Amino acid sequence: MSEMTLRDLTELVKGDLVGDGSRVIRRAAKIEEAVSGDVTFVANPKYARHLETTQATAVIVSRNIETRRQDVALVRVDDPYISFLFVLGKLTPPTELLSLGIHSTAVVDPTAVLGRDVGIGAHAVIGRRTVIGDRTRIYPGVVLGDDVRIGANSLVYSNVVIREKCSVGDDVIIHPGTVIGGDGFGFAPNTNGTYDKIPQLGTVIVEDCVEIGANCTVDRATLGETRICRGVKLDNLVHVAHNCVVGENTVIAAQTGISGSTKIGKNCVVGGQVGLVGHIVIGDRITIGAQAGVTKSFVESGMKIFGYPAREMQHRLRGEALVHQLPELRAKLRALEKRLDELQSR
Amino acid sequence: MSEMTLRDLTELVKGDLVGDGSRVIRRAAKIEEAVSGDVTFVANPKYARHLETTQATAVIVSRNIETRRQDVALVRVDDPYISFLFVLGKLTPPTELLSLGIHSTAVVDPTAVLGRDVGIGAHAVIGRRTVIGDRTRIYPGVVLGDDVRIGANSLVYSNVVIREKCSVGDDVIIHPGTVIGGDGFGFAPNTNGTYDKIPQLGTVIVEDCVEIGANCTVDRATLGETRICRGVKLDNLVHVAHNCVVGENTVIAAQTGISGSTKIGKNCVVGGQVGLVGHIVIGDRITIGAQAGVTKSFVESGMKIFGYPAREMQHRLRGEALVHQLPELRAKLRALEKRLDELQSR
Amino acid sequence: MSEMTLRDLTELVKGDLVGDGSRVIRRAAKIEEAVSGDVTFVANPKYARHLETTQATAVIVSRNIETRRQDVALVRVDDPYISFLFVLGKLTPPTELLSLGIHSTAVVDPTAVLGRDVGIGAHAVIGRRTVIGDRTRIYPGVVLGDDVRIGANSLVYSNVVIREKCSVGDDVIIHPGTVIGGDGFGFAPNTNGTYDKIPQLGTVIVEDCVEIGANCTVDRATLGETRICRGVKLDNLVHVAHNCVVGENTVIAAQTGISGSTKIGKNCVVGGQVGLVGHIVIGDRITIGAQAGVTKSFVESGMKIFGYPAREMQHRLRGEALVHQLPELRAKLRALEKRLDELQSR
Repeated sequence: MSEMTLRDLTELVKGDLVGDGSRVIRRAAKIEEAVSGDVTFVANPKYARHLETTQATAVIVSRNIETRRQDVALVRVDDPYISFLFVLGKLTPPTELLSLGIHSTAVVDPTAVLGRDVGIGAHAVIGRRTVIGDRTRIYPGVVLGDDVRIGANSLVYSNVVIREKCSVGDDVIIHPGTVIGGDGFGFAPNTNGTYDKIPQLGTVIVEDCVEIGANCTVDRATLGETRICRGVKLDNLVHVAHNCVVGENTVIAAQTGISGSTKIGKNCVVGGQVGLVGHIVIGDRITIGAQAGVTKSFVESGMKIFGYPAREMQHRLRGEALVHQLPELRAKLRALEKRLDELQSR
Repeated sequence: MSEMTLRDLTELVKGDLVGDGSRVIRRAAKIEEAVSGDVTFVANPKYARHLETTQATAVIVSRNIETRRQDVALVRVDDPYISFLFVLGKLTPPTELLSLGIHSTAVVDPTAVLGRDVGIGAHAVIGRRTVIGDRTRIYPGVVLGDDVRIGANSLVYSNVVIREKCSVGDDVIIHPGTVIGGDGFGFAPNTNGTYDKIPQLGTVIVEDCVEIGANCTVDRATLGETRICRGVKLDNLVHVAHNCVVGENTVIAAQTGISGSTKIGKNCVVGGQVGLVGHIVIGDRITIGAQAGVTKSFVESGMKIFGYPAREMQHRLRGEALVHQLPELRAKLRALEKRLDELQSR
Repeated sequence: MSEMTLRDLTELVKGDLVGDGSRVIRRAAKIEEAVSGDVTFVANPKYARHLETTQATAVIVSRNIETRRQDVALVRVDDPYISFLFVLGKLTPPTELLSLGIHSTAVVDPTAVLGRDVGIGAHAVIGRRTVIGDRTRIYPGVVLGDDVRIGANSLVYSNVVIREKCSVGDDVIIHPGTVIGGDGFGFAPNTNGTYDKIPQLGTVIVEDCVEIGANCTVDRATLGETRICRGVKLDNLVHVAHNCVVGENTVIAAQTGISGSTKIGKNCVVGGQVGLVGHIVIGDRITIGAQAGVTKSFVESGMKIFGYPAREMQHRLRGEALVHQLPELRAKLRALEKRLDELQSR
């Protein structure tokens, strides 16, 4: 899309329009550079003075900013910068749009079932009986195993690997290099110290509207499924082990690892480089601080935990703050001993 | 394999059979759903009552479970669930078996030497003089450099990269996206703050029966070799730096990183997200807790270390537990001071 | 190169030559095995005695090692082992040199612009209008998006993905599996708990002389650019989020993660598995210890910080050391209480 009406723009950013909704916006620009037909934004009150001089057709502003000008439309929103990004994204023609159709070098098994308007990039490999939904794009170098199922409107970026039988929903984005459906990490020890591999016979289910970062790993279940629920967002290099469940709309920052069979609830926010041990349960709406080591279940909705071993914010801060006072505590102890010594020697 | 005798099944799970070993098992099923020809299992004593009614031909049970029924064979084992998984794995026809032969789109250098019954997937690239053993499967998108050597019966999953001169043994599994033989991380500082790259002239040797997870990195040695010994199991996203040695049957969980020239002994168990500094030695049978930061050598067999900096379990637990008592310690200290003040003011 | 004069060798290692610079060196060897035409080295004074008997033409030695022999040239350097590696690297013919030209299976868009003497490996994919400089090598399976720009003399190893519009300088090395230009991790929360994806419209700029390890992820900026400055060295599995800047000649060890918009200065040394929160500033020449969790800015040049939350070495060591003395502190406290009790009961 390279132009939109102010009405559509306002709807896109869920804002309130002060001005004529039929006017057409063709470009997003900085406030000093904007001309007629442009939209711009003011996020910082310091720049509000530009409102009085800008040539822009419309300005995205926060709720509390006013102007006396009648010739400039205002779009009131909660976060003008983010709203501007959404508009900019819509107005900027995408520079890399995988061509529709199947590239001549792609290897698509004859039993695969492709929806309408799919794009399959160069050197992609699509396995037997694999199903790809309408308008989904499979970028170059992707390898989809047998019996994989991908919904509609999804993007699978270059060199992603999805192994056999795994399932990905609609409107999913998977960034380059990620591996879905590798074997879970399970071994049975023998008495001589060697291990036998436990067959990993389950799958991975990635529900709708999920986004998975680059070079992540989501392992297939031993039996049953590893599940990434609707709306989950995983950053780069995240590891999800076999039989885990990550609940709806939970957001997990980069390099976090979740051990086997752990279940995380809905609407949680997990920081980067967090580790969770296996077989625990994290409730809904829980916040886990970056680098925390979570060694047991936390189920009360809304808890904030962090540190190693992870504990509630409140509790941990008291103990940790005192660590820094330890030199002082020791000095006091020594002073007390001395006073007692003196007292007794009298 | 889609059927097996009870005798073979019992041998597979190293169990003890009570019943007729010549009976044939064709399917694995839940105990409530099993019919004649099926094997099922009881892991939890709560479900033992199903033993009296099941239609299964055989039931895998723990050592202490009994039944008076004569028409049901029992296979006694230590862990019925794991044993059931092994049987299920054998009875389930693999759904993705890379076709034998060389895919027409694979690029195999004419000087490469391929064993019997190998499978080389679509768009795989095999370098000069590279040798691949019998029955080994190279999945789509794998890139093997020049002079690579891979043994027999190994699986190299999609988009793995193994650089020149590296060597992989028999019965090895390497999961998708892993990189073997990238340059070690070595630089010589110049006085102006820039660095010169130190040539990384060594290789990586992965011995027999090793399993390496998805998106791992195992760097080639500066000189000589980085070695992953027989039977080692690495989970996903593990980093092994140049000139490291990981000893036989050592198991390392996800996202752990081992710095240059560190040697880990045999039969160790290393948790997830552990970091080990370079040039240290870890002995045999040592357990390292998840997220530990190991800053020095630990050589005594059987030690359990954890925390940062990593120390023996025993020692560390005492100190850490007391951190939580710090508020109390401080309160006591203040009470003492007060008592002393009173005593002295008398 | 398979031979060099002693003069060239001395220049390569920035050493001082004692002997005839016109003599030709053809091989690097261990001191016990070296023959005429060979160079060898003595790093450890224990091996200095071999100097008196070696057949080598030249020996790389540290500044303080002497010999009375006139027939052996000495090359004096600060670090003989490292210098020997540099010479060995030059004398060893590279075993994997990607062939010049475009492999017949590579897919190069007709609008791409390739410099002289480039090598494009099997199954590589080069997007529209993408520009590749002279003598740069793109290994098999690499995917370069549209409008990517790569300078001269760079190496992009197998299965690397560089997304649209990103830019890589001259003399850069990117190891296998790394992803440059994946979307930054940015979402705007809705009141119902779901998230809207914030468009990630910026790019990544990798300047000259940078080396990036295997399976790293460097995300594109939301607007503007994520920048890896000249001479930076990243180890494997490092994560750099959107809008970060990593300053000139900064070295970052494996598995470290840098959150969005954080700026790291020049000539810093960052250990492995470090995490930095977003929107902070790290000054120049700062050292960050392995596994540190950096939660705020540190700008004073030359600081050494470590631990979680990261603090200056000095400050932290005092507090942490005392944690180990806590059992002792508690025992003293109890003893004091007892003495006071006795004193008062008198």
